Amino acid sequence: MHPQPAEIGASIADIETPALIVDLDAFERNIARMAEFSRTSGVRVRPHAKTHKSPAIALRQIAQGAIGQCVQTVGEAEVLVRGGVPDVLVSNEVVGERKLRRLAALARDATIALCFDSAGQVDAASRVAQDFGVELGALVEIDVGMERCGVPPGKAAAALARRIADAPGLTFRGLQAYHGRAQHLPTYQQRAQAIASAVDAVRETLDALKAEDLNCEIVAGAGTGTFAFEADSGVYNELQVGSYVFMDTDYARIGNKDGGRYTAFEHSLFVLATVISTPTADRAIVNAGLKSYSAEKGPPWVHGLDDIEVTNVSDEHGKLVLGPKAKRLSVGEQVWLIPGHCDPTVNLHDWYVGVRNGRVEALWPIAARGASA
Amino acid sequence: MHPQPAEIGASIADIETPALIVDLDAFERNIARMAEFSRTSGVRVRPHAKTHKSPAIALRQIAQGAIGQCVQTVGEAEVLVRGGVPDVLVSNEVVGERKLRRLAALARDATIALCFDSAGQVDAASRVAQDFGVELGALVEIDVGMERCGVPPGKAAAALARRIADAPGLTFRGLQAYHGRAQHLPTYQQRAQAIASAVDAVRETLDALKAEDLNCEIVAGAGTGTFAFEADSGVYNELQVGSYVFMDTDYARIGNKDGGRYTAFEHSLFVLATVISTPTADRAIVNAGLKSYSAEKGPPWVHGLDDIEVTNVSDEHGKLVLGPKAKRLSVGEQVWLIPGHCDPTVNLHDWYVGVRNGRVEALWPIAARGASA
Repeated sequence: MHPQPAEIGASIADIETPALIVDLDAFERNIARMAEFSRTSGVRVRPHAKTHKSPAIALRQIAQGAIGQCVQTVGEAEVLVRGGVPDVLVSNEVVGERKLRRLAALARDATIALCFDSAGQVDAASRVAQDFGVELGALVEIDVGMERCGVPPGKAAAALARRIADAPGLTFRGLQAYHGRAQHLPTYQQRAQAIASAVDAVRETLDALKAEDLNCEIVAGAGTGTFAFEADSGVYNELQVGSYVFMDTDYARIGNKDGGRYTAFEHSLFVLATVISTPTADRAIVNAGLKSYSAEKGPPWVHGLDDIEVTNVSDEHGKLVLGPKAKRLSVGEQVWLIPGHCDPTVNLHDWYVGVRNGRVEALWPIAARGASA
Repeated sequence: MHPQPAEIGASIADIETPALIVDLDAFERNIARMAEFSRTSGVRVRPHAKTHKSPAIALRQIAQGAIGQCVQTVGEAEVLVRGGVPDVLVSNEVVGERKLRRLAALARDATIALCFDSAGQVDAASRVAQDFGVELGALVEIDVGMERCGVPPGKAAAALARRIADAPGLTFRGLQAYHGRAQHLPTYQQRAQAIASAVDAVRETLDALKAEDLNCEIVAGAGTGTFAFEADSGVYNELQVGSYVFMDTDYARIGNKDGGRYTAFEHSLFVLATVISTPTADRAIVNAGLKSYSAEKGPPWVHGLDDIEVTNVSDEHGKLVLGPKAKRLSVGEQVWLIPGHCDPTVNLHDWYVGVRNGRVEALWPIAARGASA
């Protein structure tokens, strides 16, 4: 882990760049909005820590009513449990004896659950849980349209749930029914349709579980692009939203109900960069590239400056092209960039620099940065 | 920094995945090939540490004849100098008083140089160098066609060199003339033409320097895609090659002289992943996605398995589609992935796991991972 990029109380001009910035006002409003949604809809929120990778943020979400956290890897679960999170769901398959043992060890200190889509994995986890004398919560992952992991909905899912229910050391707790592909569908109507079809898949599976006399405590899924649909469905009861705390350009591009842009949450995450060269009147180069933000969803947007676009990204540079209405930039000037995709961007940094009213107010370690195993 | 993903001596099957693997045989052959090229061409090699971010690899390159290292950031320079590298060139502009002071501090322990493309930066660095009582090497960066940083070739460059030569604490050492855009041009002929035009720009600048009576010790540039052209030019004398130690799919796609694929170096860098789900006969999901390899150059290639393609990448998953000739994969099986772009992929990991003959032989920390500031 590299040195902190700033001191508490420092002005923004004194932050060493490139740095990952959290606008604390916007961030807190995002958390409060989702908490309010959970209260009014009556649907639980279990935010996804794969976005923020930080116990500091997890505990803030939980203080506002979130019931725990999701993670995608055992490494993330370790960081969260060590950081004081009492309830963690690995919303993913966990493969390998060593990883299962690491997870079972955490179940001594926290409520731990994980997902399954094969009988062999159920048997492996059951053996490890017995060995450790712990009980692991178990969800059956069903494929509701994402075509990634998961068993087909209906009887296949119920059969796997039965195997879990019969497996010592495992407790069948419900269904993982996340539709990842739906999150970024461009229109509101497309997303609504995708989730309607996911809801059908869940209902079919709930019927099959009922026929097996299996109680389904959790129906989990949803992301920042679709959570209101899942909440409205009457079948989903746990929302695994992640990006809402930060937002990114990939979510900002999707449409909302009235055809405008999706604006339910605010951009609170930025990469702060510095202009290192202004070789021509219409070009400025900043010191932040692929090692400071992920670009597989396109280059970042420039925040708060008119008619300036990032047109080219290399490993350590971003090339800004200034249009006719743009204010000229000077060497040494700071620029705020909105990342294309928040999750892999966060994973490039060691620290969040939380700012408010022009000052550094918080420094939070991104403790699960790189915890991919 | 996260735990080591393996023990020395362990078999590959026992490596915790996802992990970044170096095939030591291929890696050593790549270093030896570039060293041999340097000897026969008589052109110095100063490999770029922005690719590997590791003193362990830097020192191996130097032991084979490399004259030092390039870096892109002050943080990388700090890690290399602390790790024993005696000669470091920051092939980039360094902006900000704090960064200049960090660099000047290193000049007490190592030979340090950096690049300039503005008079204001020359004056700032001169003040800091005097303050620290050190001498910083200084290169003028000229734009040879990349349209990123750099002053125009010719008189403008010579004027900046003159300012450097007159600035206390700075020593004018030469030209930074890197043509980044040329590296991945698809055909050999396109790359040859791009570098021919860069060479013209260098010659024009050398003439202007001669008119100013300024000695130009270093003409630096080149990358893995073009270094032979720069070496042949008679004007370049330092090659800043980086990716050749590892290779990636982005370099493997460019053409060589006879129209085939570029094969001067071997793939030595892999992301080792594990199959976590095989939901259908033609699909396998691995536990490595955007947080284990960068994908802005497209998804990784699957190494050593026929008729299997990564068609979709999410944060922690890769989706493999198996064609009719593919061998079926099982849950728990390991898959070797060749990253699209090696530099930002390396920057996602804490450790290199060096393997040979099926065993873990080396564990090298990626000490400058995240050192972007």
